[in-house]
Amino acid sequence: MITAESCRQLDQADELSPLRGRFDLPEGLTYLDGNSLGPQPGSIASRMEGLLDQWRSSLIAGWFDHAWAKLPLAVGARLEPIIGAEPGSVIACDSTTVNLFKAVEAACRLRSGDLLTDAGNFPTDLYVLAEVAGRNSRGFSVVDPEDLASAIGPHVGTVAITQVDFKTGRLHDLAALTALTHEAGGLMICDLSHSAGVMPIDVASTGVDLAVGCGYKYLNGGPGAPGYIYVSPPLQERVGNPITGWFGHEDPFLFAPAYWPASGPGRMQAGTPNVLSLVALDDALTIFANVDLDSLRSKSVGLTSAFIDLVDQVLGPATEVVTPRSAGERGSQVTLRHPEASRLVEELAGRGVIVDHRPPDLLRVGFSPLFNCYSDAWEAVAALSLIL
Amino acid sequence: MITAESCRQLDQADELSPLRGRFDLPEGLTYLDGNSLGPQPGSIASRMEGLLDQWRSSLIAGWFDHAWAKLPLAVGARLEPIIGAEPGSVIACDSTTVNLFKAVEAACRLRSGDLLTDAGNFPTDLYVLAEVAGRNSRGFSVVDPEDLASAIGPHVGTVAITQVDFKTGRLHDLAALTALTHEAGGLMICDLSHSAGVMPIDVASTGVDLAVGCGYKYLNGGPGAPGYIYVSPPLQERVGNPITGWFGHEDPFLFAPAYWPASGPGRMQAGTPNVLSLVALDDALTIFANVDLDSLRSKSVGLTSAFIDLVDQVLGPATEVVTPRSAGERGSQVTLRHPEASRLVEELAGRGVIVDHRPPDLLRVGFSPLFNCYSDAWEAVAALSLIL
Repeated sequence: MITAESCRQLDQADELSPLRGRFDLPEGLTYLDGNSLGPQPGSIASRMEGLLDQWRSSLIAGWFDHAWAKLPLAVGARLEPIIGAEPGSVIACDSTTVNLFKAVEAACRLRSGDLLTDAGNFPTDLYVLAEVAGRNSRGFSVVDPEDLASAIGPHVGTVAITQVDFKTGRLHDLAALTALTHEAGGLMICDLSHSAGVMPIDVASTGVDLAVGCGYKYLNGGPGAPGYIYVSPPLQERVGNPITGWFGHEDPFLFAPAYWPASGPGRMQAGTPNVLSLVALDDALTIFANVDLDSLRSKSVGLTSAFIDLVDQVLGPATEVVTPRSAGERGSQVTLRHPEASRLVEELAGRGVIVDHRPPDLLRVGFSPLFNCYSDAWEAVAALSLIL
Repeated sequence: MITAESCRQLDQADELSPLRGRFDLPEGLTYLDGNSLGPQPGSIASRMEGLLDQWRSSLIAGWFDHAWAKLPLAVGARLEPIIGAEPGSVIACDSTTVNLFKAVEAACRLRSGDLLTDAGNFPTDLYVLAEVAGRNSRGFSVVDPEDLASAIGPHVGTVAITQVDFKTGRLHDLAALTALTHEAGGLMICDLSHSAGVMPIDVASTGVDLAVGCGYKYLNGGPGAPGYIYVSPPLQERVGNPITGWFGHEDPFLFAPAYWPASGPGRMQAGTPNVLSLVALDDALTIFANVDLDSLRSKSVGLTSAFIDLVDQVLGPATEVVTPRSAGERGSQVTLRHPEASRLVEELAGRGVIVDHRPPDLLRVGFSPLFNCYSDAWEAVAALSLIL
């Protein structure tokens, strides 16, 4: 039996609880939508002021005097431990969509064969995969998530998945799917948007070939923060960026008429780095600096488990939990199904509990172990119980 | 004979001179590099604070409560008068490079035939054009700028130019080249990065089909500010974005599994809009709100003419002016050639005059008529004279 008091006790025992203080969360709000937009790190305002000072006083010299030109690599370096990537293998740039486009096009250059994904992938991923398959005259299959493993075969050149399903919260077995893909001779592209920042990912040891992800969800980089792209070391000198911009050139400031891709993942850049938003993301990522990802995952599992238990205990079997009940099979969100999900989300907001709605009938409750606590799970279920 | 005093008198008579007060320029600095990175508008710091307040307090609701999701169109609407575009034809998003990639790929879908540009185009444009031509198995020609008009013919499907040459400052006759391109059955794509914000452009009346540009030069949106893309009305329902992201979808928040391009230029968006940098650009563009573009161009011509006259008068014929001496044939920069251009740029900086170097031997002096003045031209030549 979970009570408000037992939740408070769990929060008091939580070693990660001081991290909540790094965020500027509105008083009295239960924010369970960090899987959609992370809250504001308390340090960002002064960091942005510092950047504006740099621009004001250094002007064009800021590109080198303040290393703005190196921000994509520097922010990439902060992301590497978060996704378990090798040093120098991640670049922060562009949006997730643009990075995914680059990755899928690059994979099509390296592998003939069809593209394969599952219906639980994020819409932008489905759109990009369909488009790139068409452009490259490749077959494209979208199977049910549970049929993905059996659909991987020698006719498949590229498998592209999102590790955690944005609707259901279902977690793919990335290592197993990557191994199957490699056995079949294909490349694995993984979108980490819904998993990075809440669990260890270890792209290096799982052998993922290319990965992308977004900066504004669990990474808290602010609305529309830059995305990132990971290129595994064996591919770094072989991968081709379809968007051959000057910042992907080996020496942009030579202004050479011919393109010569940078060595390493720097070649996956395209245009001029967006300094304002990269600095905000850089600041947000400092919160992860000494955070143990296994502890983060343990807390995430604790929060989602407590929430599911509370749903069962307080709301009863009338409320359908869409997310897998087995902790090892889910990310850091719990999705409920309810015919009036949209109205519930609005009424919860009226009671200071922020979750979100995905059409037609899903209510998503996101738990970011950096700032959410067991009492948040209690508040959400208590409010739901009052509304229902 | 131009003197320091006559420059001061010209500045006093300049009706645009109050606009300089909108910028936060370091005391004592002569900044002639607004064609590379515009200075900081004085209002941006408080605007960014306001945005951070929105994120802090509204969190996910900010996308609608503060219209973040509409920023690409709203900032586009501010750009329309600056480039002479029809209402609802411009979207601010992504980088110039990414937007150019979209535009060239889209043009290749609409027209068979070769791609044509000139050697004065910016490197990123040359790289993108070469890559897209290769991907689409199209011929690609790079001719000298003065040979462009005669190279346009029925075998050409797409002509892509940058209106003002980033090295020489040479201004293309956009209307004439566009007319020739259309007569030959082709499409015109124009990169306005080095012309928008210093002269009337009138993409609507010149008939340019697609245009892109950058936000951080004469538009002063900050380092790596978002770019923009213009789609002429006849193409808006026909143009295809190769990067089929969820924000280019007719209804992103339906999360539909199939892509359905937005009506109008909104379909040229890809991923989630970068709110921080869009807000900064939006703020910077307010400076143009009541500025007459013909007056801006007159002042720009006055400044570059005065600078060239001063070079002749003070430095003498030893200093080669690369930029066309005919005012109608240049943008808003003057480029000098000198074997020690790199050293000169450094020494000028030591004397508080900021210009830039383009390899191997070019020294670029950019005049942004929003904040530069005749005394800036005087200071630059006076400092050059002391160094030489």
